[in-house]
Amino acid sequence: MDKKYIKMWNNCLANRTERMKGSAIRELLKLTQMPGVISFAGGWPAPELFPVREFEEAARYWLPREGDKMLQYSVTEGLPPLKDFLVDYMKRYNVPAEPENILLTNGSQQALDLIGKVFLNEGDKIIVSEPTYLGALQAWNSYGPQYVTVKMDEKGMVVEQVEKLLKKDKIKFIYVLPNFHNPAGTTLPLERRKKLTDLVKKYDTFIVEDDPYGELRYEGEDLAPIISLLKEKVIYLSTFSKTLSPGIRLGWITAPASVMEKFVQAKQAVDLHTGTLVQYLAWDLCHRGILRAHVKELREVYKRRRDVMLESMEKYFPKGVKWTKPEGGLFLWVIVPKGIDMKKLLDKAVKLKVAYVPGAEFHANGGGENTFRLNFSNAKEDKIVEGIKRLGKLLKEAIG
Amino acid sequence: MDKKYIKMWNNCLANRTERMKGSAIRELLKLTQMPGVISFAGGWPAPELFPVREFEEAARYWLPREGDKMLQYSVTEGLPPLKDFLVDYMKRYNVPAEPENILLTNGSQQALDLIGKVFLNEGDKIIVSEPTYLGALQAWNSYGPQYVTVKMDEKGMVVEQVEKLLKKDKIKFIYVLPNFHNPAGTTLPLERRKKLTDLVKKYDTFIVEDDPYGELRYEGEDLAPIISLLKEKVIYLSTFSKTLSPGIRLGWITAPASVMEKFVQAKQAVDLHTGTLVQYLAWDLCHRGILRAHVKELREVYKRRRDVMLESMEKYFPKGVKWTKPEGGLFLWVIVPKGIDMKKLLDKAVKLKVAYVPGAEFHANGGGENTFRLNFSNAKEDKIVEGIKRLGKLLKEAIG
Repeated sequence: MDKKYIKMWNNCLANRTERMKGSAIRELLKLTQMPGVISFAGGWPAPELFPVREFEEAARYWLPREGDKMLQYSVTEGLPPLKDFLVDYMKRYNVPAEPENILLTNGSQQALDLIGKVFLNEGDKIIVSEPTYLGALQAWNSYGPQYVTVKMDEKGMVVEQVEKLLKKDKIKFIYVLPNFHNPAGTTLPLERRKKLTDLVKKYDTFIVEDDPYGELRYEGEDLAPIISLLKEKVIYLSTFSKTLSPGIRLGWITAPASVMEKFVQAKQAVDLHTGTLVQYLAWDLCHRGILRAHVKELREVYKRRRDVMLESMEKYFPKGVKWTKPEGGLFLWVIVPKGIDMKKLLDKAVKLKVAYVPGAEFHANGGGENTFRLNFSNAKEDKIVEGIKRLGKLLKEAIG
Repeated sequence: MDKKYIKMWNNCLANRTERMKGSAIRELLKLTQMPGVISFAGGWPAPELFPVREFEEAARYWLPREGDKMLQYSVTEGLPPLKDFLVDYMKRYNVPAEPENILLTNGSQQALDLIGKVFLNEGDKIIVSEPTYLGALQAWNSYGPQYVTVKMDEKGMVVEQVEKLLKKDKIKFIYVLPNFHNPAGTTLPLERRKKLTDLVKKYDTFIVEDDPYGELRYEGEDLAPIISLLKEKVIYLSTFSKTLSPGIRLGWITAPASVMEKFVQAKQAVDLHTGTLVQYLAWDLCHRGILRAHVKELREVYKRRRDVMLESMEKYFPKGVKWTKPEGGLFLWVIVPKGIDMKKLLDKAVKLKVAYVPGAEFHANGGGENTFRLNFSNAKEDKIVEGIKRLGKLLKEAIG
């Protein structure tokens, strides 16, 4: 294309595009397509476990019966029977909700974007943990907030720091991943959850509780979701991406009815409604009990993969490397000695045919060069052993 | 909920939410669910014509073979074989594109939102026709642009007015619905398309060409899409919503490669990617030739429905009422004598069990009270006759 046109398009871009950047993860996912690469980079479920047959049964049964509705436009809020199911389902995890508190979205990522759209003015301050979920930063960057970061320890967000920040500044909301944190793998204890809600009660702020992996617990007891402790000031997000399938793009927001109207208006403006067909199929798998049985299977398989990864790390990682031991979820977090830059090492890793996500990506305000994230749900056990062996080699060379 | 919480949530809303409103169409669609109401309000396809069997065949064939990919995450840009198909398919309509020019979206509505996200700063000026598509206004309102309106005549946008506006003001882009305009039903002649591109060449601005109905032509010859006349400065949108199914939420953007990167970044931030499963199913129907055969059937059925509606209007509508005679698409536009407010009459219409969309909704800067939009694709012929009869009664009483 002629340079004058390229210039014209660049001149036409909105200011917010300066804050929008491509994801390193996205480029990495391309690398993982290369033959022979063992990837611990993405947050991908194990494809061999997808309930493929059950989706096919659902399509075969329902399309001839309800095809005229499944292929038609539907309401912005989401398919009513699916919302009814979610109300019951979330009750088991003590998430309080009625159908009018639920909006179906294109995965949790869209829920994060809608939160930005409904709440964020440029310059608004958000409290996030350090590290925090990269996708949330990507969703919100275009709205131009300032991130105020809170340290994490082995129990998750250090809640004591939050109070200082709330006293000092007007904070729009606090972003919390209480269960099996992405990327850190930590789980916030009940006392910290309670402390957080006590704090939020005192200030004009609220909590965004992001819970994509809550069901994938491999040991210990379920803890009360934060929304169960203070439903008036918590927006709760979850998804089918890690349980049924990410390719159907189906998540949901649970929020107080008084803000739901704005979410629905925002959702209508961005894409009218979430796909009717995929909502029908997901509902079928839910109400037939497939979801519950499938989650049980995932727990068993992913627990073994986590254990194999932890054992392999013990065996192959050099001294001076530390990591979290997550009770559930998909990720664990590795800290190497200061001075080693895991982003710079990634090239070498790919040459050794293994991939991870450098930890700096998860830091809203810089830092974290000596950290990285590993996913243990996607690769099979033998691949995990081999991949960790390769990573061990890389780390030994780097640490010297 | 306690009033103090309601107040807190209201205080937390972003400024842009003041510009976001619910759609009158959305409330109307609820009315149309009432038994016995004949609705000409929505833009809904005929549900009895959906290729239900073919979708079921696609699911039954491909899920057992490719289920591990169909249910997994996929690339932001869209499913490669579907993009390849679209390149070939659009060539038949003279839309020039390579795979790298295409991004799959959740229907055209998301394409409109992404255009807002990538290009619009608050206060930017956009040229739109009067009337124009309500969904575009809804998508863009949250970005706070100013709408500069151009009159329409029976041939569509009056292009002579555009030059004056371009001379006077910096215009970010011109929004054009060249084929079977929603809501006006008009088709922009080739001379006006050429004139528009001549104008755009001279100024730092571009065209957004929205073409959801181009394939649904019932008479006359296909006209060159605007993008075929000036591909360097046109972003072209289309969708499967009016051909295969709106419930799969599948549309696409065609844009110069130099802006595609920003669209992909924006899409990744808002929902990672469009659903993998629905892209596979749509691709199957496309490459098996179902899309082409189905469009042929739609043309025949919708042509008859249009003709029946036009004949019924001749018969039942009183003197002083005028309307467009669209060569394709889903809508026609009715103008009643000044002083009659079709929004106020809607209550009475629903009591007579018939529904339409008041034309004022399609006016970016007010006006159009004496107009309304009728859809002719959704209701069967006998219902169209009966519905128009009811509307005729309403209009006769109003005109007196």
